[in-house]
Amino acid sequence: MNGSKCRVCKKPAIIDLPRHNANFCGEHLLQLCRRQVEKAISDHDMLSKDDKILVAVSGGKDSLAVWDILVELGYKADGLYVGLGIGEYSDVSHDFTKEFAEARRLHLRTIDLRSEYGYDVPTAAKVTSRVPCSACGLSKRHLFDAAALAGGYDVVVTGHNLDDEAAVLFGNALRWDVEYLARQYPVLPARDGFPKKVKPLVRLTEREMAAWCIVRGIDYQVEECPMALGNKHLAYKEALNAIERESPGSKSAFYLNFVEKMSPILAGLNEAATGGLNNCSVCGAPTTAETCAFCRLQERVSGHDPVPVELVLSKKGRKAYLAARG
Amino acid sequence: MNGSKCRVCKKPAIIDLPRHNANFCGEHLLQLCRRQVEKAISDHDMLSKDDKILVAVSGGKDSLAVWDILVELGYKADGLYVGLGIGEYSDVSHDFTKEFAEARRLHLRTIDLRSEYGYDVPTAAKVTSRVPCSACGLSKRHLFDAAALAGGYDVVVTGHNLDDEAAVLFGNALRWDVEYLARQYPVLPARDGFPKKVKPLVRLTEREMAAWCIVRGIDYQVEECPMALGNKHLAYKEALNAIERESPGSKSAFYLNFVEKMSPILAGLNEAATGGLNNCSVCGAPTTAETCAFCRLQERVSGHDPVPVELVLSKKGRKAYLAARG
Repeated sequence: MNGSKCRVCKKPAIIDLPRHNANFCGEHLLQLCRRQVEKAISDHDMLSKDDKILVAVSGGKDSLAVWDILVELGYKADGLYVGLGIGEYSDVSHDFTKEFAEARRLHLRTIDLRSEYGYDVPTAAKVTSRVPCSACGLSKRHLFDAAALAGGYDVVVTGHNLDDEAAVLFGNALRWDVEYLARQYPVLPARDGFPKKVKPLVRLTEREMAAWCIVRGIDYQVEECPMALGNKHLAYKEALNAIERESPGSKSAFYLNFVEKMSPILAGLNEAATGGLNNCSVCGAPTTAETCAFCRLQERVSGHDPVPVELVLSKKGRKAYLAARG
Repeated sequence: MNGSKCRVCKKPAIIDLPRHNANFCGEHLLQLCRRQVEKAISDHDMLSKDDKILVAVSGGKDSLAVWDILVELGYKADGLYVGLGIGEYSDVSHDFTKEFAEARRLHLRTIDLRSEYGYDVPTAAKVTSRVPCSACGLSKRHLFDAAALAGGYDVVVTGHNLDDEAAVLFGNALRWDVEYLARQYPVLPARDGFPKKVKPLVRLTEREMAAWCIVRGIDYQVEECPMALGNKHLAYKEALNAIERESPGSKSAFYLNFVEKMSPILAGLNEAATGGLNNCSVCGAPTTAETCAFCRLQERVSGHDPVPVELVLSKKGRKAYLAARG
């Protein structure tokens, strides 16, 4: 940081944040992160101190940081880790998550897809011939929802940050997928048998969350998921980063202005689409079909021998995966 | 084109169009362009063969191509060139425009800002301390509107192409500027003393328009306007081009899906904002103020000595300008 000083205390800075046009020391970076989380929680009525909270943790910086911040701010939050069976990537992610929880004596629950449901993400991708992110997202959503309801949790917290949400928004805006745009909001209220879901990190970037973890001494999985390498989401992030480099603050304006100005216009467009849900005949989860999408996936893909990660990577993903392994 | 063949006639191709996943010879590239213009005109009820049309021409590929295509398709179209006084760039642009019109015996009218209104774009930028594009856009809009009404034209045609419109849309979406988004449409109907305005090239890219000009033997100004170098519009184009390279067709889907799916949702949001217009006390143009923005600009900036182009370029623009001159 070449001798630059913290905007707040004038001590040596450890990070520059161009969108705030300022530098920060470790202590005041943490303060900034805490305040942005508090603002997100209060702006969108996300959480109360009495809530029983379930944090969806992956072992990456964002989910460990949001769990850390919430506990530090005095919220009661347990963690849930889903073992996706993505080779060494999943093993290492699980280790970081366990270490974090044990060091802080936090309650962590683990669900393992392979041992409890008979499949893993690479195998599901291979058997269904679809991108791995599809089976992965479906499985995680279902298991977090079900665990929250079964465990009597008031709300599920996920670690989606500003970069994640801006990239998803960019993808939806590129296609003007009105239904998805109408649904993209930092809070989803509980309804129809689904738990309330909130994203307290929507005002903070990937880089800020990495800095949070470094300053707080949290070890996390730094690798991108090998399944995601080469996917469009990463290309959208890169396009937004190029704009952000030219005009610092563009990315947060893009996401936060959407939530403020556009969401109210789109609200209500999806209302006609809800209703008509019944309970899955297998697991009881809300669904529009006889059996829910998770149970249909499980029936189709469980019992197959595990497929190695390398076999289900995209061409681009494989190149990046092999390059990362030297 | 390495021996690749035209999709239509199998003769040697001169251009590959990844978004159509095909190659085309010169003749069938022209056919594709004509058909896309006809589709835009018919989808949005832009023009009829009886209309008296005024084309806003700059000497660049897009405005000369749209004039050429419309005349070829049997429309009655005159041209209007506005001399902006941007040094050699304007001189060369004017020459290309005159050559084009003379060779085809088309009627071209020219308005020169400096000799008729006492200012030019670089001087207006310097005196107002604003970006040159601001005074330039304001001047052109006013003069095209006024000339169309005074000349009894039914409609003003501009050469905005898909890349232009997608970049403007991207900029508006980055800020979620709802008022601007609601207004962005390939047709603006005549109202309140403003003429009808249409953009027949919204389904065609810059590259396709350059190819049209090359195949048709049209010489045009190939340089970017030096005033625009380094502006955000070009950065937005580059970000969209990066996405387009990854997923051909993304750019046209972005713009055309907006027009199809989003414009109907936004339509009507601006209606409350119209009305309450009166006539400018100086020129008679419709305005919400006593004097219209053009007359206020003219009063402020006319009569100053011309300012050389180099003096009003942005830092980035100056670098690019000097680099282009070796």
